[in-house]
Amino acid sequence: MNETTSWLSQKLKQLNVTDTMATNEGFTRLSYTAEEAEAQQAFITISEELGLDTHQDEAGNIWAMWQAGPENNPAVATGSHLDTVFKGGGYDGTAGVLCSLGAVKILKENGFQPKKNIAVVCFASEESARFGVSTIGSKAVSGLLDKDQLERIKDNEGTTIRKAVESFGLDWSTIQQAEKQPGELESFVELHIEQGTEIEDHGAEIGIVRGVACPVRLKVTVHGMANHTGTTPMDKRKDALVAIAPFITFVNEKAKLFNESSNHKLVATVSTMNLQPNYMNVIPGEVEVGVDIRSVDDALKRELAKEIIDYCKELEISSGMEIKVETLVDNASVFLNKDVKNKLEHVVDNLGYRSIPLDSGAGHDVMNLAKRWPSGLIFIPCKEGISHHPTEYASIADLYKGTKIIADYLRMETGDENESNNWSDRTGRLS
Amino acid sequence: MNETTSWLSQKLKQLNVTDTMATNEGFTRLSYTAEEAEAQQAFITISEELGLDTHQDEAGNIWAMWQAGPENNPAVATGSHLDTVFKGGGYDGTAGVLCSLGAVKILKENGFQPKKNIAVVCFASEESARFGVSTIGSKAVSGLLDKDQLERIKDNEGTTIRKAVESFGLDWSTIQQAEKQPGELESFVELHIEQGTEIEDHGAEIGIVRGVACPVRLKVTVHGMANHTGTTPMDKRKDALVAIAPFITFVNEKAKLFNESSNHKLVATVSTMNLQPNYMNVIPGEVEVGVDIRSVDDALKRELAKEIIDYCKELEISSGMEIKVETLVDNASVFLNKDVKNKLEHVVDNLGYRSIPLDSGAGHDVMNLAKRWPSGLIFIPCKEGISHHPTEYASIADLYKGTKIIADYLRMETGDENESNNWSDRTGRLS
Repeated sequence: MNETTSWLSQKLKQLNVTDTMATNEGFTRLSYTAEEAEAQQAFITISEELGLDTHQDEAGNIWAMWQAGPENNPAVATGSHLDTVFKGGGYDGTAGVLCSLGAVKILKENGFQPKKNIAVVCFASEESARFGVSTIGSKAVSGLLDKDQLERIKDNEGTTIRKAVESFGLDWSTIQQAEKQPGELESFVELHIEQGTEIEDHGAEIGIVRGVACPVRLKVTVHGMANHTGTTPMDKRKDALVAIAPFITFVNEKAKLFNESSNHKLVATVSTMNLQPNYMNVIPGEVEVGVDIRSVDDALKRELAKEIIDYCKELEISSGMEIKVETLVDNASVFLNKDVKNKLEHVVDNLGYRSIPLDSGAGHDVMNLAKRWPSGLIFIPCKEGISHHPTEYASIADLYKGTKIIADYLRMETGDENESNNWSDRTGRLS
Repeated sequence: MNETTSWLSQKLKQLNVTDTMATNEGFTRLSYTAEEAEAQQAFITISEELGLDTHQDEAGNIWAMWQAGPENNPAVATGSHLDTVFKGGGYDGTAGVLCSLGAVKILKENGFQPKKNIAVVCFASEESARFGVSTIGSKAVSGLLDKDQLERIKDNEGTTIRKAVESFGLDWSTIQQAEKQPGELESFVELHIEQGTEIEDHGAEIGIVRGVACPVRLKVTVHGMANHTGTTPMDKRKDALVAIAPFITFVNEKAKLFNESSNHKLVATVSTMNLQPNYMNVIPGEVEVGVDIRSVDDALKRELAKEIIDYCKELEISSGMEIKVETLVDNASVFLNKDVKNKLEHVVDNLGYRSIPLDSGAGHDVMNLAKRWPSGLIFIPCKEGISHHPTEYASIADLYKGTKIIADYLRMETGDENESNNWSDRTGRLS
């Protein structure tokens, strides 16, 4: 381990507010909780050690600025998030924040003087685990926050987003003022763990993302009839769970078929299911299931959604129970900026890393920023593709590669145009 | 409406602590809650109006005594319970308590002087809705309460049974002292709504129960792998919900087949299901399902349980996921006393009601008492067999029939042997 990898290893733990990454419980830093604030505090501490100026914006995002010129000059931005799902991993989001800070460290240690402002950003509340709404912080920055819609949303304990935001020390009435105008940023690059295995499957080291597949999400509700399990004969039941059971298999099998007959990947999951009343001695009277469908091919995912809706109509007839389908989300996929992608490829090639182009099945903060600024996304591998789970893992060696890529990219974007090409790799070896 | 039916209609509401039986919310009086205590208080008030002596025993059961002789003479007992499931009906349990009180009213108004003590009992905590354990009060009376086992059980909000019992004003250390010795009761008869449609299907008015089908209950847990819905290709998943989906259909189809090939009825239900983590963007990593199997034919229900367990083994192999099956409950069915059954038939015949013999798919307090005392169970119809639901309904006319049956039974059991045979029917017409 060299000094930089030791630093990454130590700061990874610091950002995760832990003494060890090896924990069976994983990390739980839900949106706008004291746990997310604690991780943000660690981010501020590290940023200040590196000589960056930090401030929190109206949506709770933390910006760590390396000012090269006037404050209102456009900044080249990089970063990710520090919140997690319940019992999630310590790399989803954190990896991008860590590598961005590591890149600043390398550049500073090598006496680099940026010609443009650099911003390392830690977005608030990226995960949808608490409120069912994702990327709240980066939506606010990109002018995409629908406050009226958020107003109605509560977590499982009945706490509204508004209340959570206020407990986080923010003012609900000004949250949308976190929005940045087009001229305030020049570009944005995010680094993230892949949360899949394509990089490894292709024998590569780095993924350079072309598009982000945003989901279609459906809620299907079956209205059967709750009744006593012991007294209701089999032929007189309206068991909502029995009615919906084949649906689970249908969604899974159809998604597999769509992959066979299309060039684009598609995934579909029945991921949530809630029974009413969910008592041992009562037949399920109502079942609600959530379906998550993703592909960068929007037509493809909508075609599957249509087949699922049609299947529900068939089930409604065959079961004799009312089956209601609501479309909760239907977002078009986001394609990332080609220039930024080419620059990232150039940097990665110069560093000698084998890369592949790929699509992201997961949403990330970058998908919001891409709607306003030229944006890019790079993936580093994570073990067996496992994410949102305590066993999520990325190696320090891969985090180091990511750090060098960001450092070289920032140097290229904010430095003199005639500097050598893979300078951070050299500094990395020296450090 | 005559005076007795008016009384039944009014007292039905009083026992349900309501102004109207027509409520969309149903009734919620979970075990050992303030709501159950409130209904018990109504029972005490009505009992005292009728001149009965009331006392609460160590398990929270209320006894209303019509003393004909010394207190330690064996009592002829009748009654049921007043607690309900969450948003249940106002007849399950309450009907039996009401008809028992109504029978005392008829007997008293006609100047009947019992030669033996009569006990009307309102058992505490019959439903398993809160703690997953049923008939706590009548288990205690019958010497069947396993306090050590209960000690570990909590409700969904983390309250232990012990805590709930103490909040109910009882002493946990003496709960088992509610046990009655064989000589303290002579017999027990319960009236209950059918919670099925056999009576109606056979064109009858009253059901006389032969046996009570006690359940086999299984808990099946599938251990898959939680992972990101957007990034995990279809062919790299260990989706616990996809693995268990065919199981739901299997249990339902097999139960139907068992009914076709056997003389005894059998029902089987996948009634509970809990997904972990149950988030829209995470593949279900663990799914736990509860199965409830009932038949008075114990061999038949155990044969189905075995087929279900074998099927889980097949699923374990085909899915590549660990599937664990636990038997939570395996209780033998209870057969009711033939003499009591014959006496009830005799009373019902004398009153001119068409009755059928049947089995009970639901457990009732009587199944505990039947292990120590000669016991019987009669059913009155309920609308469309619906129970454990706000639309549960029994007509006042049927409650009146039940009241007359209990009155005649008590008269026969505690009166002079040479009195006329259908005396309460006559008083009913006169009143």
